[in-house]
Amino acid sequence: MERITHRYMLVVEYDGAPFTGWQRQENGLAVQQLVEEAIEVFAGRPVRLHCAGRTDSGVHALHQVVHVDLDRPMRVDKIRDATNAQMRDHPVVVREVREVTEAFHARLSAVRRHYLYRILNRPAPASVDRGRVWHVRQRIDADVMHEAAQSLVGHFDFTTFRATQCQGRTPWKTLERLDVSRAGDEIHIRAASRSFLHHQVRSMVGTLAQAGIGRWRVQDVADALHACDRRACGPVAPAHGLYFTGVDYPPEALISPGEATNP
Amino acid sequence: MERITHRYMLVVEYDGAPFTGWQRQENGLAVQQLVEEAIEVFAGRPVRLHCAGRTDSGVHALHQVVHVDLDRPMRVDKIRDATNAQMRDHPVVVREVREVTEAFHARLSAVRRHYLYRILNRPAPASVDRGRVWHVRQRIDADVMHEAAQSLVGHFDFTTFRATQCQGRTPWKTLERLDVSRAGDEIHIRAASRSFLHHQVRSMVGTLAQAGIGRWRVQDVADALHACDRRACGPVAPAHGLYFTGVDYPPEALISPGEATNP
Repeated sequence: MERITHRYMLVVEYDGAPFTGWQRQENGLAVQQLVEEAIEVFAGRPVRLHCAGRTDSGVHALHQVVHVDLDRPMRVDKIRDATNAQMRDHPVVVREVREVTEAFHARLSAVRRHYLYRILNRPAPASVDRGRVWHVRQRIDADVMHEAAQSLVGHFDFTTFRATQCQGRTPWKTLERLDVSRAGDEIHIRAASRSFLHHQVRSMVGTLAQAGIGRWRVQDVADALHACDRRACGPVAPAHGLYFTGVDYPPEALISPGEATNP
Repeated sequence: MERITHRYMLVVEYDGAPFTGWQRQENGLAVQQLVEEAIEVFAGRPVRLHCAGRTDSGVHALHQVVHVDLDRPMRVDKIRDATNAQMRDHPVVVREVREVTEAFHARLSAVRRHYLYRILNRPAPASVDRGRVWHVRQRIDADVMHEAAQSLVGHFDFTTFRATQCQGRTPWKTLERLDVSRAGDEIHIRAASRSFLHHQVRSMVGTLAQAGIGRWRVQDVADALHACDRRACGPVAPAHGLYFTGVDYPPEALISPGEATNP
Protein backbone atom coordinates (compact mmCIF):
# COMPACT_ATOMS: atom_id res chain seq x y z
CA MET A 1 0.00 0.00 0.00
CA GLU A 2 1.43 3.33 -1.03
CA ARG A 3 1.56 6.01 1.60
CA ILE A 4 0.76 9.57 0.53
CA THR A 5 2.64 11.41 3.26
CA HIS A 6 5.61 10.58 5.41
CA ARG A 7 5.25 11.53 9.06
CA TYR A 8 8.25 12.41 11.21
CA MET A 9 8.54 12.97 14.94
CA LEU A 10 11.09 15.64 15.92
CA VAL A 11 12.56 16.27 19.37
CA VAL A 12 13.22 20.00 19.64
CA GLU A 13 15.31 21.87 22.23
CA TYR A 14 15.28 25.65 22.66
CA ASP A 15 16.14 28.63 24.82
CA GLY A 16 12.81 30.41 25.19
CA ALA A 17 14.26 33.89 25.83
CA PRO A 18 14.18 35.38 22.29
CA PHE A 19 10.80 33.94 21.31
CA THR A 20 7.12 34.75 21.77
CA GLY A 21 6.64 31.12 22.78
CA TRP A 22 6.03 27.99 20.74
CA GLN A 23 2.92 29.07 18.85
CA ARG A 24 2.91 31.46 15.88
CA GLN A 25 1.96 34.96 16.99
CA GLU A 26 1.52 38.25 15.23
CA ASN A 27 3.92 40.10 17.55
CA GLY A 28 7.35 38.56 17.08
CA LEU A 29 9.10 35.31 16.23
CA ALA A 30 7.70 32.03 17.54
CA VAL A 31 9.69 28.79 17.72
CA GLN A 32 7.01 27.11 15.56
CA GLN A 33 7.51 29.62 12.74
CA LEU A 34 11.30 29.28 12.87
CA VAL A 35 11.24 25.47 12.65
CA GLU A 36 8.50 25.39 10.00
CA GLU A 37 10.39 27.85 7.79
CA ALA A 38 13.61 25.84 8.23
CA ILE A 39 11.86 22.66 7.07
CA GLU A 40 10.11 24.44 4.19
CA VAL A 41 13.52 25.23 2.66
CA PHE A 42 14.10 21.57 1.85
CA ALA A 43 10.48 20.34 1.85
CA GLY A 44 9.74 22.70 -1.01
CA ARG A 45 6.22 23.46 0.23
CA PRO A 46 4.50 24.91 3.31
CA VAL A 47 4.49 22.59 6.32
CA ARG A 48 2.59 22.68 9.58
CA LEU A 49 4.07 21.43 12.85
CA HIS A 50 1.98 19.98 15.67
CA CYS A 51 3.58 20.07 19.13
CA ALA A 52 3.05 18.20 22.39
CA GLY A 53 3.09 21.30 24.62
CA ARG A 54 2.63 24.93 23.63
CA THR A 55 5.21 26.69 25.77
CA ASP A 56 4.72 30.35 26.70
CA SER A 57 7.04 33.20 25.85
CA GLY A 58 10.35 32.77 27.69
CA VAL A 59 9.79 29.11 28.64
CA HIS A 60 12.60 26.75 27.59
CA ALA A 61 12.34 23.23 26.17
CA LEU A 62 14.85 20.44 26.54
CA HIS A 63 12.54 17.91 24.92
CA GLN A 64 9.62 19.36 22.98
CA VAL A 65 8.03 16.80 20.65
CA VAL A 66 6.46 17.77 17.32
CA HIS A 67 5.39 16.00 14.15
CA VAL A 68 5.38 17.05 10.52
CA ASP A 69 4.21 15.45 7.28
CA LEU A 70 6.45 15.50 4.22
CA ASP A 71 5.59 14.50 0.63
CA ARG A 72 8.84 12.65 0.07
CA PRO A 73 10.70 10.32 2.41
CA MET A 74 14.01 11.63 3.76
CA ARG A 75 16.71 10.13 5.93
CA VAL A 76 16.06 11.12 9.53
CA ASP A 77 19.59 12.42 10.17
CA LYS A 78 19.30 14.46 6.95
CA ILE A 79 16.10 16.10 8.27
CA ARG A 80 17.82 16.85 11.61
CA ASP A 81 20.96 18.34 10.06
CA ALA A 82 19.20 20.28 7.27
CA THR A 83 16.78 21.85 9.77
CA ASN A 84 19.57 22.73 12.20
CA ALA A 85 21.64 24.29 9.41
CA GLN A 86 18.78 26.68 8.63
CA MET A 87 18.33 27.65 12.32
CA ARG A 88 22.05 28.20 12.99
CA ASP A 89 21.56 31.82 14.13
CA HIS A 90 18.91 30.92 16.72
CA PRO A 91 19.06 28.94 19.99
CA VAL A 92 16.78 26.19 18.65
CA VAL A 93 17.89 22.71 17.58
CA VAL A 94 16.34 19.45 16.45
CA ARG A 95 17.94 16.79 18.65
CA GLU A 96 16.42 13.72 17.06
CA VAL A 97 14.10 12.65 14.23
CA ARG A 98 12.14 9.40 13.89
CA GLU A 99 9.82 8.25 11.15
CA VAL A 100 6.42 7.32 12.58
CA THR A 101 3.06 6.23 11.20
CA GLU A 102 -0.03 8.40 10.90
CA ALA A 103 -1.21 6.80 14.12
CA PHE A 104 1.22 9.17 15.87
CA HIS A 105 0.14 12.70 16.76
CA ALA A 106 2.54 14.77 18.88
CA ARG A 107 -0.27 16.32 20.92
CA LEU A 108 -3.12 13.82 20.76
CA SER A 109 -1.01 10.68 21.34
CA ALA A 110 0.77 12.13 24.40
CA VAL A 111 -0.18 10.51 27.70
CA ARG A 112 2.10 12.47 30.04
CA ARG A 113 4.02 15.77 30.00
CA HIS A 114 7.06 16.56 32.17
CA TYR A 115 8.31 19.93 33.38
CA LEU A 116 11.28 21.07 35.45
CA TYR A 117 11.40 24.39 37.28
CA ARG A 118 14.80 25.71 38.43
CA ILE A 119 15.13 28.19 41.31
CA LEU A 120 18.55 29.67 42.12
CA ASN A 121 18.40 30.03 45.90
CA ARG A 122 21.26 32.15 47.23
CA PRO A 123 21.92 35.81 48.01
CA ALA A 124 23.82 36.50 44.75
CA PRO A 125 21.84 36.70 41.48
CA ALA A 126 22.62 34.40 38.52
CA SER A 127 25.55 35.07 36.18
CA VAL A 128 26.40 32.05 34.01
CA ASP A 129 22.78 30.85 34.32
CA ARG A 130 21.19 34.27 33.90
CA GLY A 131 17.81 33.90 32.16
CA ARG A 132 17.75 30.18 32.91
CA VAL A 133 16.79 30.16 36.60
CA TRP A 134 14.47 32.12 38.90
CA HIS A 135 16.53 33.89 41.53
CA VAL A 136 15.06 33.75 45.07
CA ARG A 137 17.24 35.38 47.75
CA GLN A 138 15.39 34.18 50.84
CA ARG A 139 16.43 30.75 52.07
CA ILE A 140 14.04 28.05 50.84
CA ASP A 141 13.41 24.88 52.82
CA ALA A 142 13.05 22.31 50.02
CA ASP A 143 11.62 19.70 52.39
CA VAL A 144 8.83 22.04 53.48
CA MET A 145 8.17 22.93 49.86
CA HIS A 146 8.02 19.24 48.92
CA GLU A 147 5.62 18.50 51.76
CA ALA A 148 3.33 21.33 50.67
CA ALA A 149 3.54 20.12 47.05
CA GLN A 150 2.11 16.70 47.96
CA SER A 151 -1.28 18.28 48.71
CA LEU A 152 -1.49 19.19 45.00
CA VAL A 153 -0.82 15.66 43.74
CA GLY A 154 -4.05 13.96 42.65
CA HIS A 155 -7.29 14.68 40.77
CA PHE A 156 -8.45 18.21 41.57
CA ASP A 157 -10.10 21.36 40.28
CA PHE A 158 -6.96 23.49 39.70
CA THR A 159 -8.81 26.79 39.14
CA THR A 160 -6.53 28.46 41.73
CA PHE A 161 -3.46 27.60 39.65
CA ARG A 162 -4.89 28.46 36.23
CA ALA A 163 -4.37 31.67 34.29
CA THR A 164 -7.60 33.64 33.94
CA GLN A 165 -7.10 33.55 30.14
CA CYS A 166 -6.77 29.72 30.14
CA GLN A 167 -8.91 28.21 27.38
CA GLY A 168 -8.89 24.61 28.65
CA ARG A 169 -12.30 22.91 28.67
CA THR A 170 -12.10 22.02 32.34
CA PRO A 171 -10.03 23.02 35.39
CA TRP A 172 -9.96 19.38 36.53
CA LYS A 173 -6.58 17.74 36.06
CA THR A 174 -4.72 14.80 37.58
CA LEU A 175 -1.31 15.92 38.79
CA GLU A 176 0.77 12.75 38.91
CA ARG A 177 3.99 14.08 40.37
CA LEU A 178 5.27 17.27 42.02
CA ASP A 179 8.68 16.68 43.59
CA VAL A 180 10.85 19.37 45.17
CA SER A 181 14.52 18.81 45.95
CA ARG A 182 17.68 20.82 46.56
CA ALA A 183 20.82 20.46 44.42
CA GLY A 184 23.47 22.76 45.86
CA ASP A 185 22.27 26.35 45.39
CA GLU A 186 19.33 25.25 43.27
CA ILE A 187 15.82 24.07 44.06
CA HIS A 188 14.37 21.73 41.43
CA ILE A 189 10.65 21.18 41.03
CA ARG A 190 9.61 18.29 38.77
CA ALA A 191 6.01 18.03 37.63
CA ALA A 192 4.22 15.37 35.59
CA SER A 193 0.61 15.22 34.40
CA ARG A 194 -1.32 14.03 31.34
CA SER A 195 -1.80 17.74 30.60
CA PHE A 196 -1.46 21.06 32.38
CA LEU A 197 -3.59 24.20 32.54
CA HIS A 198 -2.19 27.50 31.25
CA HIS A 199 0.39 28.80 33.80
CA GLN A 200 -0.31 25.83 36.10
CA VAL A 201 3.31 24.88 36.82
CA ARG A 202 4.43 28.50 37.33
CA SER A 203 1.41 29.18 39.56
CA MET A 204 2.10 26.11 41.69
CA VAL A 205 5.84 26.88 41.93
CA GLY A 206 5.26 30.51 42.93
CA THR A 207 2.77 29.44 45.58
CA LEU A 208 4.99 26.65 46.92
CA ALA A 209 7.93 29.06 47.14
CA GLN A 210 5.89 31.07 49.65
CA ALA A 211 5.77 27.96 51.82
CA GLY A 212 9.46 27.27 51.17
CA ILE A 213 10.52 30.67 52.52
CA GLY A 214 8.17 30.34 55.50
CA ARG A 215 5.73 33.06 54.54
CA TRP A 216 2.90 30.52 54.07
CA ARG A 217 2.22 27.43 56.17
CA VAL A 218 2.09 24.03 54.46
CA GLN A 219 -1.65 23.91 55.09
CA ASP A 220 -2.13 27.28 53.32
CA VAL A 221 -1.16 25.63 50.01
CA ALA A 222 -3.84 22.95 50.39
CA ASP A 223 -6.34 25.63 51.40
CA ALA A 224 -5.48 27.66 48.28
CA LEU A 225 -6.13 24.60 46.08
CA HIS A 226 -9.48 23.87 47.71
CA ALA A 227 -10.55 27.53 47.42
CA CYS A 228 -10.80 26.96 43.62
CA ASP A 229 -10.27 30.70 43.25
CA ARG A 230 -7.53 32.34 41.18
CA ARG A 231 -7.18 35.04 43.86
CA ALA A 232 -5.99 32.37 46.33
CA CYS A 233 -2.89 31.72 44.22
CA GLY A 234 0.53 33.00 45.31
CA PRO A 235 2.71 35.13 42.99
CA VAL A 236 3.26 33.34 39.66
CA ALA A 237 6.89 32.24 39.14
CA PRO A 238 8.60 33.77 36.07
CA ALA A 239 8.74 31.97 32.71
CA HIS A 240 12.52 31.84 32.46
CA GLY A 241 12.92 29.18 35.20
CA LEU A 242 10.60 26.71 33.44
CA TYR A 243 11.72 23.83 31.18
CA PHE A 244 9.53 21.47 29.17
CA THR A 245 11.51 18.26 29.67
CA GLY A 246 9.62 15.40 28.09
CA VAL A 247 6.55 13.65 26.78
CA ASP A 248 5.43 10.06 27.24
CA TYR A 249 3.70 8.15 24.43
CA PRO A 250 2.28 4.63 24.44
CA PRO A 251 4.60 2.22 22.58
CA GLU A 252 2.01 1.64 19.83
CA ALA A 253 2.09 5.33 18.88
CA LEU A 254 5.82 5.14 18.21
CA ILE A 255 6.03 2.17 15.85
CA SER A 256 7.88 2.87 12.63
CA PRO A 257 6.14 2.57 9.22
CA GLY A 258 8.23 -0.52 8.47
CA GLU A 259 6.92 -2.27 11.58
CA ALA A 260 3.37 -1.13 10.84
CA THR A 261 3.21 -2.69 7.37
CA ASN A 262 4.69 -6.02 8.45
CA PRO A 263 2.05 -8.72 8.90
CA MET B 1 47.15 46.60 67.57
CA GLU B 2 45.32 48.76 65.06
CA ARG B 3 45.10 47.46 61.53
CA ILE B 4 45.51 49.94 58.68
CA THR B 5 43.64 48.03 56.00
CA HIS B 6 40.88 45.46 56.06
CA ARG B 7 41.38 42.58 53.65
CA TYR B 8 38.45 40.72 52.12
CA MET B 9 38.34 37.54 50.08
CA LEU B 10 35.62 37.50 47.40
CA VAL B 11 34.31 34.50 45.47
CA VAL B 12 33.32 35.73 42.01
CA GLU B 13 31.22 33.95 39.36
CA TYR B 14 30.93 35.11 35.74
CA ASP B 15 29.93 34.30 32.20
CA GLY B 16 33.09 35.01 30.23
CA ALA B 17 31.38 35.70 26.89
CA PRO B 18 31.09 39.53 27.01
CA PHE B 19 34.54 40.15 28.53
CA THR B 20 38.14 40.42 27.38
CA GLY B 21 39.02 38.05 30.23
CA TRP B 22 39.80 38.66 33.88
CA GLN B 23 42.68 41.11 33.52
CA ARG B 24 42.28 44.78 32.57
CA GLN B 25 42.96 45.31 28.88
CA GLU B 26 42.99 48.31 26.62
CA ASN B 27 40.58 46.74 24.11
CA GLY B 28 37.28 46.20 25.91
CA LEU B 29 35.78 45.48 29.31
CA ALA B 30 37.57 43.09 31.65
CA VAL B 31 35.90 41.40 34.62
CA GLN B 32 38.58 42.91 36.89
CA GLN B 33 37.69 46.45 35.82
CA LEU B 34 33.96 45.85 36.29
CA VAL B 35 34.36 44.49 39.84
CA GLU B 36 36.93 47.11 40.86
CA GLU B 37 34.69 49.95 39.66
CA ALA B 38 31.70 48.43 41.48
CA ILE B 39 33.67 48.33 44.76
CA GLU B 40 35.06 51.85 44.25
CA VAL B 41 31.51 53.24 44.35
CA PHE B 42 31.22 52.42 48.06
CA ALA B 43 34.93 52.24 48.96
CA GLY B 44 35.28 55.88 47.95
CA ARG B 45 38.79 55.39 46.56
CA PRO B 46 40.56 53.36 43.86
CA VAL B 47 40.95 49.67 44.71
CA ARG B 48 43.03 46.93 43.15
CA LEU B 49 41.87 43.32 43.01
CA HIS B 50 44.24 40.35 43.03
CA CYS B 51 42.88 37.10 41.59
CA ALA B 52 43.77 33.43 41.90
CA GLY B 53 43.58 32.69 38.17
CA ARG B 54 43.64 35.10 35.24
CA THR B 55 41.03 33.64 32.91
CA ASP B 56 41.23 34.37 29.18
CA SER B 57 38.61 36.07 27.09
CA GLY B 58 35.47 33.91 26.91
CA VAL B 59 36.42 31.61 29.80
CA HIS B 60 33.80 31.33 32.54
CA ALA B 61 34.29 31.21 36.29
CA LEU B 62 32.07 29.49 38.84
CA HIS B 63 34.50 30.13 41.68
CA GLN B 64 37.16 32.76 40.99
CA VAL B 65 38.84 33.97 44.19
CA VAL B 66 40.09 37.54 44.61
CA HIS B 67 41.14 39.78 47.47
CA VAL B 68 40.83 43.51 48.03
CA ASP B 69 41.93 45.91 50.79
CA LEU B 70 39.51 48.50 52.14
CA ASP B 71 40.26 51.43 54.48
CA ARG B 72 37.17 50.89 56.60
CA PRO B 73 35.68 47.63 57.83
CA MET B 74 32.36 46.63 56.27
CA ARG B 75 29.94 43.79 56.89
CA VAL B 76 30.71 40.97 54.43
CA ASP B 77 27.12 40.61 53.20
CA LYS B 78 27.03 44.40 52.68
CA ILE B 79 30.12 44.16 50.45
CA ARG B 80 28.56 41.30 48.49
CA ASP B 81 25.20 43.01 47.97
CA ALA B 82 26.61 46.50 47.26
CA THR B 83 29.01 45.11 44.65
CA ASN B 84 26.30 43.01 43.01
CA ALA B 85 23.93 45.98 42.88
CA GLN B 86 26.51 47.94 40.86
CA MET B 87 27.08 45.03 38.44
CA ARG B 88 23.39 44.32 37.88
CA ASP B 89 23.60 44.80 34.09
CA HIS B 90 26.48 42.33 33.65
CA PRO B 91 26.71 38.54 34.11
CA VAL B 92 29.13 38.83 37.02
CA VAL B 93 28.30 38.27 40.69
CA VAL B 94 30.07 38.10 44.02
CA ARG B 95 28.87 34.86 45.61
CA GLU B 96 30.56 35.20 48.98
CA VAL B 97 32.79 37.54 50.98
CA ARG B 98 35.03 36.68 53.97
CA GLU B 99 37.27 38.91 56.01
CA VAL B 100 40.83 37.55 56.06
CA THR B 101 44.18 38.67 57.43
CA GLU B 102 47.02 40.12 55.40
CA ALA B 103 48.53 36.64 55.45
CA PHE B 104 46.02 35.82 52.71
CA HIS B 105 46.82 36.56 49.07
CA ALA B 106 44.37 35.25 46.45
CA ARG B 107 47.15 34.31 44.02
CA LEU B 108 50.19 33.66 46.20
CA SER B 109 48.42 31.67 48.92
CA ALA B 110 46.71 29.32 46.44
CA VAL B 111 47.99 25.74 46.48
CA ARG B 112 45.69 24.22 43.86
CA ARG B 113 43.47 25.43 41.00
CA HIS B 114 40.52 23.50 39.55
CA TYR B 115 39.03 23.68 36.07
CA LEU B 116 36.09 21.99 34.35
CA TYR B 117 35.78 21.68 30.58
CA ARG B 118 32.35 20.87 29.09
CA ILE B 119 31.96 19.25 25.67
CA LEU B 120 28.48 18.79 24.19
CA ASN B 121 28.81 15.53 22.29
CA ARG B 122 25.85 14.93 19.98
CA PRO B 123 24.89 15.65 16.37
CA ALA B 124 22.75 18.71 17.22
CA PRO B 125 24.50 21.94 18.28
CA ALA B 126 23.77 23.62 21.64
CA SER B 127 20.66 25.74 22.19
CA VAL B 128 19.95 26.40 25.88
CA ASP B 129 23.69 25.95 26.63
CA ARG B 130 24.93 27.90 23.61
CA GLY B 131 28.22 29.63 24.45
CA ARG B 132 28.67 27.42 27.53
CA VAL B 133 29.85 24.16 25.96
CA TRP B 134 32.11 23.10 23.07
CA HIS B 135 30.06 21.24 20.49
CA VAL B 136 31.73 18.13 19.05
CA ARG B 137 29.58 16.16 16.59
CA GLN B 138 31.72 13.04 16.28
CA ARG B 139 31.06 10.42 18.94
CA ILE B 140 33.63 10.64 21.75
CA ASP B 141 34.66 7.60 23.78
CA ALA B 142 35.09 9.12 27.25
CA ASP B 143 36.90 6.03 28.55
CA VAL B 144 39.52 6.25 25.81
CA MET B 145 39.88 9.98 26.46
CA HIS B 146 40.30 9.33 30.19
CA GLU B 147 42.93 6.66 29.54
CA ALA B 148 44.89 9.03 27.29
CA ALA B 149 44.58 11.80 29.91
CA GLN B 150 46.35 9.70 32.54
CA SER B 151 49.63 9.97 30.61
CA LEU B 152 49.53 13.73 31.32
CA VAL B 153 49.12 13.38 35.09
CA GLY B 154 52.42 13.96 36.90
CA HIS B 155 55.46 16.26 36.82
CA PHE B 156 56.34 17.09 33.21
CA ASP B 157 57.61 19.70 30.81
CA PHE B 158 54.27 20.82 29.31
CA THR B 159 55.76 22.85 26.43
CA THR B 160 53.50 20.97 23.98
CA PHE B 161 50.40 22.22 25.80
CA ARG B 162 51.54 25.80 26.36
CA ALA B 163 50.58 28.84 24.28
CA THR B 164 53.60 30.28 22.45
CA GLN B 165 52.89 33.62 24.15
CA CYS B 166 52.93 32.03 27.64
CA GLN B 167 55.02 34.10 30.04
CA GLY B 168 55.43 31.48 32.77
CA ARG B 169 58.97 31.06 34.10
CA THR B 170 59.08 27.36 33.39
CA PRO B 171 57.10 24.82 31.34
CA TRP B 172 57.43 22.29 34.18
CA LYS B 173 54.19 21.72 36.08
CA THR B 174 52.71 18.97 38.20
CA LEU B 175 49.29 18.01 36.88
CA GLU B 176 47.52 16.41 39.83
CA ARG B 177 44.29 15.32 38.20
CA LEU B 178 42.81 15.01 34.70
CA ASP B 179 39.57 13.05 34.78
CA VAL B 180 37.26 12.52 31.82
CA SER B 181 33.71 11.24 32.22
CA ARG B 182 30.42 11.22 30.32
CA ALA B 183 27.21 12.74 31.73
CA GLY B 184 24.44 12.13 29.19
CA ASP B 185 25.28 14.12 26.06
CA GLU B 186 28.18 15.87 27.77
CA ILE B 187 31.82 14.99 28.29
CA HIS B 188 33.32 16.55 31.44
CA ILE B 189 37.06 17.03 31.88
CA ARG B 190 38.21 18.00 35.39
CA ALA B 191 41.75 19.25 35.87
CA ALA B 192 43.65 20.17 39.05
CA SER B 193 47.18 21.53 39.47
CA ARG B 194 49.03 24.00 41.70
CA SER B 195 49.11 26.23 38.62
CA PHE B 196 48.58 25.96 34.88
CA LEU B 197 50.40 27.30 31.84
CA HIS B 198 48.64 29.69 29.46
CA HIS B 199 46.10 27.67 27.38
CA GLN B 200 47.20 24.44 29.08
CA VAL B 201 43.74 23.06 29.85
CA ARG B 202 42.34 23.98 26.43
CA SER B 203 45.41 22.50 24.69
CA MET B 204 45.13 19.24 26.63
CA VAL B 205 41.36 19.01 26.04
CA GLY B 206 41.67 19.64 22.30
CA THR B 207 44.39 17.01 22.03
CA LEU B 208 42.51 14.45 24.13
CA ALA B 209 39.39 14.97 22.03
CA GLN B 210 41.39 13.70 19.03
CA ALA B 211 41.92 10.47 20.95
CA GLY B 212 38.27 10.44 22.07
CA ILE B 213 36.98 10.51 18.47
CA GLY B 214 39.53 7.89 17.41
CA ARG B 215 41.66 10.10 15.20
CA TRP B 216 44.67 9.73 17.53
CA ARG B 217 45.76 6.63 19.38
CA VAL B 218 46.09 6.82 23.19
CA GLN B 219 49.86 6.53 22.83
CA ASP B 220 49.92 9.57 20.48
CA VAL B 221 48.91 11.80 23.40
CA ALA B 222 51.85 10.60 25.52
CA ASP B 223 54.14 11.03 22.52
CA ALA B 224 52.92 14.60 22.03
CA LEU B 225 53.70 15.41 25.69
CA HIS B 226 57.20 13.95 25.48
CA ALA B 227 57.92 15.80 22.22
CA CYS B 228 58.00 19.05 24.30
CA ASP B 229 57.12 20.86 21.09
CA ARG B 230 54.12 23.16 20.61
CA ARG B 231 53.67 21.80 17.07
CA ALA B 232 52.88 18.36 18.53
CA CYS B 233 49.71 19.72 20.20
CA GLY B 234 46.27 18.93 18.77
CA PRO B 235 43.76 21.71 17.94
CA VAL B 236 43.18 23.95 20.99
CA ALA B 237 39.64 23.63 22.41
CA PRO B 238 37.63 26.89 22.40
CA ALA B 239 37.45 29.19 25.44
CA HIS B 240 33.67 29.01 25.90
CA GLY B 241 33.70 25.41 27.19
CA LEU B 242 36.12 26.19 30.03
CA TYR B 243 35.15 26.97 33.64
CA PHE B 244 37.42 28.01 36.49
CA THR B 245 35.77 26.07 39.32
CA GLY B 246 37.82 26.50 42.46
CA VAL B 247 40.97 27.26 44.40
CA ASP B 248 42.45 25.46 47.41
CA TYR B 249 44.16 27.39 50.22
CA PRO B 250 45.91 26.07 53.31
CA PRO B 251 43.71 26.57 56.42
CA GLU B 252 46.18 29.05 57.94
CA ALA B 253 45.69 31.43 54.98
CA LEU B 254 41.97 31.62 55.66
CA ILE B 255 41.89 32.51 59.36
CA SER B 256 39.78 35.55 60.17
CA PRO B 257 41.32 38.69 61.72
CA GLY B 258 39.49 37.92 64.97
CA GLU B 259 41.14 34.52 65.24
CA ALA B 260 44.53 36.00 64.27
CA THR B 261 44.63 38.57 67.08
CA ASN B 262 43.56 36.13 69.79
CA PRO B 263 46.48 34.96 71.93
